[in-house]
Amino acid sequence: LERRATESVLAELEDFHPEDIAELLERLDLPYAKLLLYALPEEKAAEVIVNLDEERRAELLQDYSVRELAQEVIENLDSDDAADIISELPQERIHEVLQNLEDPDQAREIADLLSYEEDTAGSIMAKELVKVNASWKLMRCLREMRRQAEKVEQVHAIYVVDDEDRLLGTLSLKKLLTTSTKTPVAEVYDRKVISVTTDVHVEEVARLMRKYDLVVIPVVDKDGKLVGRITFDDVMDVMQEEAERDYQMASGLTQDVESDDSIFALSRARLPWLLIGMLGGVISSRVVDYFDISQYPEMAAFMPLIAATGGNVGVQSAALVVQSLANDSFNESIIKKLLKDLGVGLVTATVCASLMFAVTAALGKPFNLSITVSLALISVIVFAAMFGTFVPLTLNKFKIDPAVATGPFVTTTNDVIGLFIYFSVAKLIM
Amino acid sequence: LERRATESVLAELEDFHPEDIAELLERLDLPYAKLLLYALPEEKAAEVIVNLDEERRAELLQDYSVRELAQEVIENLDSDDAADIISELPQERIHEVLQNLEDPDQAREIADLLSYEEDTAGSIMAKELVKVNASWKLMRCLREMRRQAEKVEQVHAIYVVDDEDRLLGTLSLKKLLTTSTKTPVAEVYDRKVISVTTDVHVEEVARLMRKYDLVVIPVVDKDGKLVGRITFDDVMDVMQEEAERDYQMASGLTQDVESDDSIFALSRARLPWLLIGMLGGVISSRVVDYFDISQYPEMAAFMPLIAATGGNVGVQSAALVVQSLANDSFNESIIKKLLKDLGVGLVTATVCASLMFAVTAALGKPFNLSITVSLALISVIVFAAMFGTFVPLTLNKFKIDPAVATGPFVTTTNDVIGLFIYFSVAKLIM
Repeated sequence: LERRATESVLAELEDFHPEDIAELLERLDLPYAKLLLYALPEEKAAEVIVNLDEERRAELLQDYSVRELAQEVIENLDSDDAADIISELPQERIHEVLQNLEDPDQAREIADLLSYEEDTAGSIMAKELVKVNASWKLMRCLREMRRQAEKVEQVHAIYVVDDEDRLLGTLSLKKLLTTSTKTPVAEVYDRKVISVTTDVHVEEVARLMRKYDLVVIPVVDKDGKLVGRITFDDVMDVMQEEAERDYQMASGLTQDVESDDSIFALSRARLPWLLIGMLGGVISSRVVDYFDISQYPEMAAFMPLIAATGGNVGVQSAALVVQSLANDSFNESIIKKLLKDLGVGLVTATVCASLMFAVTAALGKPFNLSITVSLALISVIVFAAMFGTFVPLTLNKFKIDPAVATGPFVTTTNDVIGLFIYFSVAKLIM
Repeated sequence: LERRATESVLAELEDFHPEDIAELLERLDLPYAKLLLYALPEEKAAEVIVNLDEERRAELLQDYSVRELAQEVIENLDSDDAADIISELPQERIHEVLQNLEDPDQAREIADLLSYEEDTAGSIMAKELVKVNASWKLMRCLREMRRQAEKVEQVHAIYVVDDEDRLLGTLSLKKLLTTSTKTPVAEVYDRKVISVTTDVHVEEVARLMRKYDLVVIPVVDKDGKLVGRITFDDVMDVMQEEAERDYQMASGLTQDVESDDSIFALSRARLPWLLIGMLGGVISSRVVDYFDISQYPEMAAFMPLIAATGGNVGVQSAALVVQSLANDSFNESIIKKLLKDLGVGLVTATVCASLMFAVTAALGKPFNLSITVSLALISVIVFAAMFGTFVPLTLNKFKIDPAVATGPFVTTTNDVIGLFIYFSVAKLIM
């Protein structure tokens, strides 16, 4: 009966996209997931394995022998996916799997991909591509492409190389289809091609592809030889991770966690920033003690307002800087930027302070307190606006990810400094 | 002399990518930008115009006559870029430009693209694509593709349709190149094709392309007829905007602004959240007044700590929810999620509270105050963790963007509630 059930499930699954099957396998209990994966046709199973998340993939591949891994999984994959999966294996298995591959070319290609540093173009590129020699006639191109296409799933570009395999340009399918087959490639190919070398950081690859609207980008070695290509979906994952990291940092999470991680992992990702925030709180308490609040206890009521506003303004400024740095749209000089923030600070401060003056008066607070709150608010907002701009710019200068600044750091510092300003103004006025 | 200078600049520019020329034109003073744009060859100028930012484009196109716009700019562009640029024109010019196009097919295509609602697949798709009929033999495909390729800049997919133009599947270049030209398309094409209808929201298009690693996706109308295709670079812009919106919301900016916008625009984007934050501050002041802080003024010193910790914990929880909702990886039930947050809250709260107990004792604070701060901290952290999870989930249920929750809203609410908890604990203990 179980076999009948499995068979009917399999028949259903046959038409599903590997990504959807992977999602299903992630949700099933491990034994069922194993059962299903083993029952899938080899090629489909390999595609499904690529689409699994890392954790489930490790669980499912544990039972595979080195030989099965090599011949049932890796041999059915493109070089970039194959390298990704192999790189996740324990060091001693990597070598064995490569030795068990039947095609020595594939083994060499994968070993080559594994040799690049993480997060470089070389480490995410695929080896499969279609290339033609500039000296060929188009007829020969078609013939050679027919041979190469056997290995290449999707053809997004036809690269033109010289006899030393150096990248010269691209041949558009349009030209290939619409020009006489006797024309030499050299006469019709496009010499303008944007490429990256293997050591370029993936974030830079993403930036280039985004900037120039590229679906695929060729990768060359330091001699200009064509060694691979990167398609958009590969860098998109990188971009996505980058955006998530910024977002997490801005939210005070220090590690890449997801809401379905364990309680321990989640707590560990949260504690560092919380403790830094608490350190700020302790320093704040010293500021309050230093100014001896018991002299003017009515000031306590507006401490949260002053601290929160400073924090909010600082984060707003920092976020704007982080974003324009990320978009590469930071064209202004630092001085000009700070002057502008001074302007924005003054405008928002005036609005907020006038409003608060009216509110405190309406609440029947003493005139002195109203003046103190309003003046402190102006100083805090202006300071926080400029501080929030200054910190990420400085971090960036020292090659530290400026997104750190939008996290609790700026908020916490502004809390402390805001209270200090508040009490200093009070000293002068009250 | 000026002409000589211009000519040498032009010769240099000839080899630049349109995107780079666009960047240059954005930085130049307007009169120089105009001069340069006019001097560029027509096709290059059109490509540069596509790559300009909206503001500069409007400035540069102002002097174009309707006829020039139609015949020098629009006619040199793909339908999607053409529609984008036309849609930015004043209403009365749109019609005139369309009438001035020499190719009635192009005019009809652009008018069709303009008819779709903003942010739908129809509004961002391009009409240029390569399609073949399922009943043709491959030889005829090649012939027809040759004709169609004249119009299509890059061929990423060959679509297979029936006699009514309904999308049936795709024909891979690999199959086309490696199969005998006498084979009918029907025998070799791939029936598994993921498509969207014209009314699908672009964010959903982006999600599908990302999920299934698609470089291009076909668009069909409600009868299943193939009407266009969307390439990755088009949805990427949408994704990028979406991520930026989330990030801005999390940082308390209510409008899409950039750091080089005007002081007025920047202030307007900042004020709403600042005022909401201040409202929170005013409510906090009422809480403090209500509990009459002058009875225990030493409590004031730890108000910032309590408020800040509550705010930080809340934002952490909210960010995790927002992210897992965005990634579609939210598989757990709400109850299970809240229980887990209770666990994370308790772990972090225990660590933070024990530490604070030690710190307050070390600072020589009275035992009662130490106990109050520690107990309040535990309650605030646990509450904030669950509240930060609950709010975005609720917003999401009511179809409000959950990212709103990571902005100052959760922080502000947690500030107020944190103080309330702090004073309530004090009432019981002190």
